[in-house]
Amino acid sequence: MDHATTDQKIAQTEYDIMPQIAERWSPRTFSDRVIDQETVHRLFEAARWAASSRNYQPWRFIYGLKGTEAYDRILNSLVPFNRQWAESAPLLVMTIVKEQMDNGKDNYHALHDLGLAMGNFSVQAQDLGLALHHMAGFDWKGAHEAFDIPEGYHAVTVVAVGHYGGDPETLPEDLQKGETTPRQRKPIDEIVGEGTFPQ
Amino acid sequence: MDHATTDQKIAQTEYDIMPQIAERWSPRTFSDRVIDQETVHRLFEAARWAASSRNYQPWRFIYGLKGTEAYDRILNSLVPFNRQWAESAPLLVMTIVKEQMDNGKDNYHALHDLGLAMGNFSVQAQDLGLALHHMAGFDWKGAHEAFDIPEGYHAVTVVAVGHYGGDPETLPEDLQKGETTPRQRKPIDEIVGEGTFPQ
Repeated sequence: MDHATTDQKIAQTEYDIMPQIAERWSPRTFSDRVIDQETVHRLFEAARWAASSRNYQPWRFIYGLKGTEAYDRILNSLVPFNRQWAESAPLLVMTIVKEQMDNGKDNYHALHDLGLAMGNFSVQAQDLGLALHHMAGFDWKGAHEAFDIPEGYHAVTVVAVGHYGGDPETLPEDLQKGETTPRQRKPIDEIVGEGTFPQ
Repeated sequence: MDHATTDQKIAQTEYDIMPQIAERWSPRTFSDRVIDQETVHRLFEAARWAASSRNYQPWRFIYGLKGTEAYDRILNSLVPFNRQWAESAPLLVMTIVKEQMDNGKDNYHALHDLGLAMGNFSVQAQDLGLALHHMAGFDWKGAHEAFDIPEGYHAVTVVAVGHYGGDPETLPEDLQKGETTPRQRKPIDEIVGEGTFPQ
């Protein structure tokens, strides 16, 4: 893993956690290294083994590797702000959720379960020295048309994937700072309560 | 990690993935070992550092350790089917999502982001030899009242957490088989497409 630009990104944790979780962050620039097909498969293999409500596995994925038409179509679905930096990623993944259960009723837990799968994907990526940047900013309606996404499915995010170690100076000036500022999270007390809702 | 009852649960993967992902499964019985407060903090620390849309961190958690009133209140929120086995877990966690963004609009990605946090929690737990079993089957309306969960938040799951190595024979007969049957997932081709929606 290339730590050249990431030391200041390591989570300042009060309690000991796995390095694959503490050292993960979401860059907007990636190194020039390509991602091979075997690695793509390993990432989706990790996602695939997540838990899900009734084992429905409501996650679907469309991916493209840089230099392919598939990649360009995913890239073009992004809002301009994201498109300007995401094109340095060697891999783009569109995540999609199946909205109904087998009985036709809405699956309230579908998005949660997609998140579990992407949690696996994220930790596995970090273990391979790869970074992710999840994006909500894309034209999901356009993507539904462009990729013929069937009714009952909904595109959720586009994720840029690549090796750490991109050069922040290749980014527009207003985005450079984000590559080096420390990560911030709410204190544990604000998100966790013992027997009571955290306030 | 106690592998005594888990060997047949190891994911049959085509591609190499982290053991913390391949060996995870969702038991309905746990060993007698307690979980200490330090471990509880490590799990939530891992969850806390997940990515989220605009860094909103829409995850909230209420937990209880066995033997406390907090635990009993979470246990009592479960539907009878889950209550019958979950009480062997030393730790119960209720996961909750903040439904709106700071601007008051619905946060479509909130459930996905809670899933990302629970993905971290899950891998960290496995790294510590702990198993999770997520449950959708609980009285969330009753939980909102019992725990005074504010408007704009929604209880999503209750998660049983404990060490692997429980004795399946302590379970009702109809639940014993699930502790040893191999895990099943859809083939990768059914969930992943290169440039096209997987069919």
